[in-house]
Parts: sequence; structure tokens; C-alpha cells
Amino acid sequence: MRKDCDYIVDYAVRQMLPDEAVRRALKDREFSSGRLILVAVGKAAWSMAHSAHEVLGDRISDGIVITKHGYSQGPIGSLKIREAGHPVPDDDSFSSTKEALELTADLSADDTVLFLLSGGGSTLFENPKCSAEDLQNVTRQLLAKGADIVSMNIIRKRLSNVKGGRFAQHCLPAKVYAVVLSDIIGDPLDMIASGPAYPDSSTCEEAAETIRRFGIELPPACVELMKNETPKTLDNVETVITGSVREFCKAAAHACEELGYETRFLTDCMDCEASEAGSFLSSIARSWQGIDHSIAFISGGETVVHLNPEGHGVGGRSQVIAFSAIEKIAGLSDTVIFSAGSDGSDGPCDAAGGYVDGDSLGKLREKGLDPFDVMMDNDTYHGLEAIGGLIRTGATGTNVNDISVVLIRRRNKADS
Amino acid sequence: MRKDCDYIVDYAVRQMLPDEAVRRALKDREFSSGRLILVAVGKAAWSMAHSAHEVLGDRISDGIVITKHGYSQGPIGSLKIREAGHPVPDDDSFSSTKEALELTADLSADDTVLFLLSGGGSTLFENPKCSAEDLQNVTRQLLAKGADIVSMNIIRKRLSNVKGGRFAQHCLPAKVYAVVLSDIIGDPLDMIASGPAYPDSSTCEEAAETIRRFGIELPPACVELMKNETPKTLDNVETVITGSVREFCKAAAHACEELGYETRFLTDCMDCEASEAGSFLSSIARSWQGIDHSIAFISGGETVVHLNPEGHGVGGRSQVIAFSAIEKIAGLSDTVIFSAGSDGSDGPCDAAGGYVDGDSLGKLREKGLDPFDVMMDNDTYHGLEAIGGLIRTGATGTNVNDISVVLIRRRNKADS
Repeated sequence: MRKDCDYIVDYAVRQMLPDEAVRRALKDREFSSGRLILVAVGKAAWSMAHSAHEVLGDRISDGIVITKHGYSQGPIGSLKIREAGHPVPDDDSFSSTKEALELTADLSADDTVLFLLSGGGSTLFENPKCSAEDLQNVTRQLLAKGADIVSMNIIRKRLSNVKGGRFAQHCLPAKVYAVVLSDIIGDPLDMIASGPAYPDSSTCEEAAETIRRFGIELPPACVELMKNETPKTLDNVETVITGSVREFCKAAAHACEELGYETRFLTDCMDCEASEAGSFLSSIARSWQGIDHSIAFISGGETVVHLNPEGHGVGGRSQVIAFSAIEKIAGLSDTVIFSAGSDGSDGPCDAAGGYVDGDSLGKLREKGLDPFDVMMDNDTYHGLEAIGGLIRTGATGTNVNDISVVLIRRRNKADS
Repeated sequence: MRKDCDYIVDYAVRQMLPDEAVRRALKDREFSSGRLILVAVGKAAWSMAHSAHEVLGDRISDGIVITKHGYSQGPIGSLKIREAGHPVPDDDSFSSTKEALELTADLSADDTVLFLLSGGGSTLFENPKCSAEDLQNVTRQLLAKGADIVSMNIIRKRLSNVKGGRFAQHCLPAKVYAVVLSDIIGDPLDMIASGPAYPDSSTCEEAAETIRRFGIELPPACVELMKNETPKTLDNVETVITGSVREFCKAAAHACEELGYETRFLTDCMDCEASEAGSFLSSIARSWQGIDHSIAFISGGETVVHLNPEGHGVGGRSQVIAFSAIEKIAGLSDTVIFSAGSDGSDGPCDAAGGYVDGDSLGKLREKGLDPFDVMMDNDTYHGLEAIGGLIRTGATGTNVNDISVVLIRRRNKADS
């Protein structure tokens, strides 16, 4: 069944590669008669732009690609290729974004901006309305007061010329065709890369309340900016989400069906503690023993891991999901649980995720390892490595979160 | 949808009432020609015996009912009705069990013992091979060393004349027909009431290892008892499990189908942290929004709750499951999550469980309550009470663990 696991992960990840996704989004697409300006932003910007260029070629009038330092793989036609700082913005972020704003200024209603957006864009794509120092000052205060990401964005959108729908507003009267590779569960378009081409649902009242609640001292230049409302509608934008954890789940389900599993989709927004997700999935696995056909349960999402502060090991949320099932499915035959991140990198290690079956606990104990000790040391990576339970895909070039799969194979194939 | 919830809980609990279950198990049952001795043990013993008496009447030659103090509801034919200590055994436990052993001594191969077993039997049904003091001494040491329930049972079975299959052995050569109302997930027959009529899988070697591991100092009289093996096979026993969390789930599923929900069974052995179970179920609820028909997801089991040591409130695991979903399903229409214990008593309060829907968070806030604060105070009972989210059934007279249900109703009924 390990082969089934590897096939499912490989197949699903391939369906989520941004080049595939962009090709799907642009195939047979008609644009207005005017200029077509490409702006690609995010960690997957290079491959999204590369793919768009393959499909559209010279139809692209001009364009710019802004990705993370080291993420460019070379020139693409005459597109400007820029690299910038992530996860902390740097001068390259600001200068590249300025170039993008210049490229998309003074467009006509017949022109179109092809906006290819992926995770990481919040940092890579920024043009503050205030000074970089003021922006940093406010961000630091928000962090110090423990502001959540939603509160942070309410404030930062108002200090930006591109966030919160303002990039699309800037492109007016041109149309914007946004192709978004979502890395956030539920695909909240106003959150992905802070929503440069999506109407902002937050209000100036909420911004004022946030400032008050967290006791932020605004630099004088920022006070007026907080009263400057973000766009609530954007009639010039059309958005296509290509690649999302839901599509990732669907792709995994398709692979499971090809392999003969009846497939049950559970959720694409699993966001509980990783170890408890592993426990829940094991409970499902145990309850479906003895079924007369093969079955797969598929969950997607982004779980969280609360590390033991005393632990010294390495691991990642997908490895924790799989490893947490090791005791509960011990001894079961034809039953596996695996979890993997689409980006090929689960936590600070070279694995994409983990795989366990009914024999894993025995193998672990043979290696002199105790599952409780491994968890307490936050060391699921080495625990899984010891039993051949790591899933390794290498960097995949996409990022649409994780899938977790329970597979139960019918006991006796001859019964069919 | 609250009505749907109440109907489902009420229907499923009714199917699990021990009298119903016993009636099903005894209907059309043929017994050997000899005597038929009834022995009913556990918290549900009275109603199980009452029901058996209704079905079998004078066919019962003699019998005894051993239940918890205050749980008898009056005489049943000529059966001896005994009450004893729970959760701590008392002299009544020992004397009643002695009576049961006397009633079932010297039986012939044509005789049958009808053994009606339910949760609580470990305590109510005990006849130690050692003195009560020695048993208490060993039990105290095991508790003090943090021994788990499995380790406790390995030792206690060897100090008992009834646990670990020894009651059935005592009944030889008579047959034993055991009707078991399971209160443990997975229905481990050697664990329910410490398995008086089920072969014991633990060994004397494991007992010696347990004594060593926990550093138990055995009273002299107990040393030899540890070498006395429990029965590994019992050819005279036939066991029927009537009522279990799986059947409870099936009953809930049946009620859901009657109400027009397509029903998806997930698991009957959910045993993760209650709050995370609530989170997982909310993720499922969110992912299935917009479905074109009504759907129900059903999980059963016994979750755990780690209380905040600083909290002062009350609640129970089912209330925690429901309450933990309150933020994640906020705003969703036609979507509810509820959880309830079959015994009608979830934690130290008068509720059986909790119910939340998309409006619950708003109602809670209107009452001036914050969901995070409620959880931190371990006070799901008052949090749910404030929004009419408690499920109250009163004591039901059965105990087969909990169900948790996600209901999503098709938006537009006119679409059908």
C-alpha cells in the first residue's frame, strides 16, 4: 500500500503544479483587443509566468515577475524578472512593486492586466502610502501587542497602494484577470497576498477600533491614511482560483479511485491540532475494519502543532498527523494513514510528510524507539525515518496545503 | 433543526435502553432443558433483569440482581434484589457476589446461567481470593504508581474469583448466556466489568512484569495468586452484545435518515480531545456547505477533556465538543453540531450534551460571553445554557457512550 500512497501524493501534487493550473486557466481564454500586461507575484510567480508565456507568447505586451530571492529559474521572453525579500520585505520588494505599478499605469479600458498571484505576495508585493519606517513601526507595535493576522491586515491594507483591492483599482479602467493559486484554506481572496485585486471587506471603523484595542500609537503621517477607505467593489476584476486545497483533495480522490478505492471526502479545511487529527483519522480507520471493499477517506487543510517546549527533534504537521496514528492503528492489516504537504516540505526538514500502517509500531519498537518519547521530543521526522515512514517528494514548486488520507484495502482480493 | 436534534437523540437513546436490548436478545431464544439461573450485574442490572423477567417469566428458576445503591426500582418476581457500592466496592458487593456464586454452584450441564452484564460490574461484582484488605492494599499501590486501567485489571483479575472469566468457569458444567450492554468503545469483552464471563488474554508473565514495573509490594497471601492462570478458553459461554456505541450510532443514523438526511457514518471509536473533535466536525460542516441535499455525519465514542486548572466552571465532554464548534460554524445557515451522552448525564451537571448552530456565537456575544473565556473557565455548561444550547434528557437508564452529529440541511426546500 506504500506504492498506493506514493502514487496518490505524486498524482495530486502534479495536478496542483502552478504551470498546469495556469495553462488550464488561460486555455481558450479571450482577452480584450488592447494591451495585455502580465504581473506575476508570489512564491510560484516564476512558474506561473513561464506557463502563461507558453500559452500566450507574443500576445503578452509587457510584464513583470516578482518572486522570492533565488526562486527565478531564468528569463521568460521579454518579461522583467525581479527577486525580493521573503518573509521580510526589502528594498527590492518596494522597487519591483513600483515597476509593476508603472507598467500598469495609464492603461485604457481595452487593456487587460493578467495578474498571477500566489502565496508570499503580501511581502513581495508592497508599495506603502507611508514611509517604509512608518510601516515598520506600526507592524512592530501590532506584533508586540499580539495582534492576529486579520487585525494586522485591516491596518496594513490602509497603509498600502496595492493591498486590499488597491492594485486592481490602480489598473482602472483596464480589466484585471486574476489567476490565484491559493495557499490559505477556504481560499479567502482578501487574505491571499493581502488581496491586491479583491474588494476589501474591512472598514475604517474597524481600523480605528483595532488601533484603539491594541493601543497602537500611529505615526502622524498614518493618522489620515486610516480614514482612507479601501475599495468595496471592483467591477474590472475577474478572478479564477486555480489550485486550492479543495482541488488538491479532489486530485487525491481521483487517484484513489483509479486505484480502486471508494472515496469519501471529509473536509478541505481541517485546522485542528495535528496530533488530534491523527487520532480522529485513526478512529475512522478502526471503525471501518472488515469492510467488503477498499475505501479511502480524504481530508485537506492546514493543521497546527503545539511543540513540547522540552523537545529537541524535528518534524512537521503532516508527519505529526501520521505519527499520531501509529499506536491506534497498530496491528491492523491493509490499513494505512498518510499525510503530506503539497510543497514537498513539511516543517524544517527534507520530507513532505509521513506514512504509517499496522506494522509501524512494531518496527519502531524494534528500533528501540517509543512513540510517546518520539512525540515528546517533537521528533516525528526521525521516528518516521527509522521505520521508512517518510514521504519525500523534493520541492514541488506548488503550495496548496496538505492532504491526509486513510486507506483501507479489502482483505481478500480474491473475493471480488 | 433543534427539533431534528432532539428527535435524533431521543430516538437513539430509546433504542439503547437495556430493556429493549434484552428483549431483542432473548426473543425466540431456546435454553437447555435444565434450570435457568439469572444473574444481573451492573448499573443497568435492574432494568435488564426486569425485561428478562417479562420475556421469560417462570422459565427463570432462580436469580439475583446486583446494582448500585439506589438503582433498584422494586421487586422482580422472586429474584433477589441487591444493591452495593459504586464506584467503591463495599461489604454489600462482596456479600451479594457470594450469593450469586452460591446460586450458580453445583449446576449441571443441562443448566444455563443467564448473565446480564452492564458497566459498573467491576465494582459491584467481586469476590476476592485474598482478604478485602489485601485487595485494597494492592489497588491503592497501583493507583499511587499511576498504573493504567489495563495494568490494574491484569493484577485484579488474578486476585478475584469472578473477574477474568472466572465466574463463567465457576458455572461449569452449566452453560452461560451472557447479554452485555457495552459502555466501552470497541466493546472489549475482557474489559467490560472486568470480563467475568470472557476468556482473559492477559498472562501470569504480564502480571509479574506489571508488579515489577510499578514496584508493587505484594502482601504475602497474594504472591502465589499471581501465578494462578486465568481461563484462556471458555467453551460454555455464548455472548451477545446488545447496545454498544456502534449500535447507538446506527440508531442515530436511522433517525437522521427518517428526517431526510443522507447519512455518513464516520467512526464509533472517537477518543481524541473533545475540543479537537469539535474542531474536526466543524471543518467537515464548513466543507459541505452548499450541498444540494441534506446530509448528516455521525461519530460515536468517548472523547477526553483536559480541563484548564485555572477554570471554575462545569461541563462535560459532549458539551465541550459542541461548544468548540461555536466559532467555526458561526454564520453558517442550516448547519448544526450536537453531541450527547446516552446516559443523559454529561459531566457533573444535569445536561446530556450540547447543541450549536450558526447563530450560537452571536447569541453568546449578546449575553456578554466570549467563547474563549467560557472554554478557559471550563464552563461550557453555562455557556450553552445562556444560548439555549443544552440537551437535557434526564437520566436515561442506559450507558453506551456518546454520539456527535453534524447536520447540514439543503438550503432551499423548494428545490427538491
